Amino acid sequence: MTGTTQDDYTDRYARRVRGMTTSEIRALFAVASRPEVVSLAGGSPYVAALPLDAVGEMLGRLAAEEGTTSLQYGIGQGTAELREGICEVMSLSGIDASTGASPDDVVVTVGGQQALDLVARLFLDPGDVVLAEGPTYVGALGAFQAAQAQVRHVAMDADGLIPAALEAAIAETAGRAKFLYTIPTYQNPAGVTLTDERREQVLDICERAGLLVVEDDPYGTLSFAGDAPRPLRARRRDGVFYLSTFSKTFAPGLRVGWILAPHAVREKLVMASEAQILCPSAFAQAAVTKYLATMPWREQIKSYREIYRERRDALLDALEDLMPAGTTWTRPEGGLFVWATLPDGLDSKAMMPRAIAARVAYVPGTGFFADGSGAGHMRLNFSFPPPDRIREGVRRLAGVMEQELAMRAVFGTPTRHRRRGHAGADTPGPDLA
Amino acid sequence: MTGTTQDDYTDRYARRVRGMTTSEIRALFAVASRPEVVSLAGGSPYVAALPLDAVGEMLGRLAAEEGTTSLQYGIGQGTAELREGICEVMSLSGIDASTGASPDDVVVTVGGQQALDLVARLFLDPGDVVLAEGPTYVGALGAFQAAQAQVRHVAMDADGLIPAALEAAIAETAGRAKFLYTIPTYQNPAGVTLTDERREQVLDICERAGLLVVEDDPYGTLSFAGDAPRPLRARRRDGVFYLSTFSKTFAPGLRVGWILAPHAVREKLVMASEAQILCPSAFAQAAVTKYLATMPWREQIKSYREIYRERRDALLDALEDLMPAGTTWTRPEGGLFVWATLPDGLDSKAMMPRAIAARVAYVPGTGFFADGSGAGHMRLNFSFPPPDRIREGVRRLAGVMEQELAMRAVFGTPTRHRRRGHAGADTPGPDLA
Repeated sequence: MTGTTQDDYTDRYARRVRGMTTSEIRALFAVASRPEVVSLAGGSPYVAALPLDAVGEMLGRLAAEEGTTSLQYGIGQGTAELREGICEVMSLSGIDASTGASPDDVVVTVGGQQALDLVARLFLDPGDVVLAEGPTYVGALGAFQAAQAQVRHVAMDADGLIPAALEAAIAETAGRAKFLYTIPTYQNPAGVTLTDERREQVLDICERAGLLVVEDDPYGTLSFAGDAPRPLRARRRDGVFYLSTFSKTFAPGLRVGWILAPHAVREKLVMASEAQILCPSAFAQAAVTKYLATMPWREQIKSYREIYRERRDALLDALEDLMPAGTTWTRPEGGLFVWATLPDGLDSKAMMPRAIAARVAYVPGTGFFADGSGAGHMRLNFSFPPPDRIREGVRRLAGVMEQELAMRAVFGTPTRHRRRGHAGADTPGPDLA
Repeated sequence: MTGTTQDDYTDRYARRVRGMTTSEIRALFAVASRPEVVSLAGGSPYVAALPLDAVGEMLGRLAAEEGTTSLQYGIGQGTAELREGICEVMSLSGIDASTGASPDDVVVTVGGQQALDLVARLFLDPGDVVLAEGPTYVGALGAFQAAQAQVRHVAMDADGLIPAALEAAIAETAGRAKFLYTIPTYQNPAGVTLTDERREQVLDICERAGLLVVEDDPYGTLSFAGDAPRPLRARRRDGVFYLSTFSKTFAPGLRVGWILAPHAVREKLVMASEAQILCPSAFAQAAVTKYLATMPWREQIKSYREIYRERRDALLDALEDLMPAGTTWTRPEGGLFVWATLPDGLDSKAMMPRAIAARVAYVPGTGFFADGSGAGHMRLNFSFPPPDRIREGVRRLAGVMEQELAMRAVFGTPTRHRRRGHAGADTPGPDLA
């Protein structure tokens, strides 16, 4: 072990760094990746379902035959070919030329995370407010925190974001809210989907309030029964930024995502991205372009859907069969996640070390709220472990919860651990997010 | 053409966006990539010199045989295997365990640009000052500008940064300067190298002033005669951040760079990177790891050196033979760039449209100064075009300059165009940076 372990640089950091702290939970997640642990904590797609030999052959040819461009620098916005492919993908969801989508207004990013960070950079000054579902995506909280913005959560129910709660939040933060950040479809972590009716209401409310909408849609095509409701961007062209990624429909290891933005904003996004990464990987872009052009990508999405539906069913069945009374959970129609609410008095964060000892991992609900609330909840992933492992994980988890409840019966209800500050401190690393 | 072309979002942008403006020069660079134009503007390595078939075979196997990890998410810091490989690469330059370098203190980044941006994010508040060579790397100016910092340039001569000028700059910016940003070896764009003696002086000056040093070393191994002087980080462990990339020694299309940072700072860098991109590409990392482990990467660097030395000679010979009297230029011992100073009265920015019309491109000196000065200079690249194209490009450029000088003789000396504000506005896109 070398290097200074004490932080002699504390006085030198920029103000935006002050909210960044490491967490004891983070270390636990390193353990969660051990093979004996059933991890329901991750957000990893099941890439073993890809035709890896064919993908390998495709990637090999990209370097051998087109290496002088695929291994070279590219332009900051991303290649025209990939941006056209992205428009083809978006047209599946009703975002097409008739709703003003054009390759010229697409910016290729390093996964969905850079898309979020660029939007944060472009619009957020310190002290600005972002409205976001509560709970919401961990990585979005990280990007907004890095921009020194504050997140005001808006409540959801089984039908997604509650319009009246959105109106109340807008009134409360009058003039300080820059945008609504929302994952309307198969939300991460809640697993719920905004209904058609509410989509129109949310758009109307935001338009009336002059509030921009940042729509994050990584899971929209991963539906288990029929198609998801059309994205917000397919319904309204002005004031809606649409973000998505190939991480869930192809492979996250290439880090290719995108933003569809109004033309004038697109130029700023490109400049901001160049300051950050110069240009996205030409090789990764060529890989996705070739994948879309030569491989059965629509069938691959169907294959992911079937695998995840089976695993979702395994998780819901196991929860039904094994969870202690008083536990409730959402029933997602697509995506990767179930959000569970624990029996009163249980604390998902405090319970983590015991869960890891029992060889099961999840993400405590505290990671998904900017104010550190959420200890009564946890996120459970069903995309990565096979069905029998999912059931075994739930069995272990239920055992830990029963023990906790028994202790509670003996020693009384503990005060639930609450914490203020940056939620990211409680979050796993990206391999588990 | 779809999308709003007028910017209705002007009032909504964060303050950091205000300095970002597009430029008429930028559009010219799009033209510069046409095949009939000899581009001396780029910074692209000659990746055609790579054994592309072998690289392709390697990449294909990575997906086919290791796809379940290489196409999956990874950890924010980057893989342990690649960080070990990076330490092996750094040990070539004398940065090793004896000087406190450890894989644990390496953060893998999306090329050298993200490394710069992360350092900027970590240390720069609005109004903070960065000391940097004048001229300096375009992308660094972009990253510092995005952090709303100010750049105070420090003069160079043929031996690199002038220590007395550094001392004066430190005195002038007392308390506001956060770090010295320097490219000591084969500087971009100046092509000069800081001497051994001055390296010690610069380190002593910064240590006395309590000023951090950010050492950017993308070109250090690309020497044409003997090895370069040892990096600053090989001489001093405390307070020096070392940044480099595989873009110039392997391939930029994979976007893999790194930072070697003091241990405590490394943790913050990882958190900042996760907020920005979640994690670097597992595939790109596996590609570089495998490249270092199984292919003759040291021989490839030698091959790049020989190609670039021949092209540097071609450029210097052509300049000597063809440039109008009064033109001067640097004589780099490595790297990719020559910095030329024009005869009095010529303006490299104003001349660009005529150069493009004459089918030759360069980067005007104005791109490399935060205050828009530098119109009397230009950067010439010799890594990408073959020797005969370099000579043809210089011939065309000399013709344009002769015409300009003739006009000047007739119409008198024009006022040199000077501009205040963000230097990035005058810069080419990343394919040319």
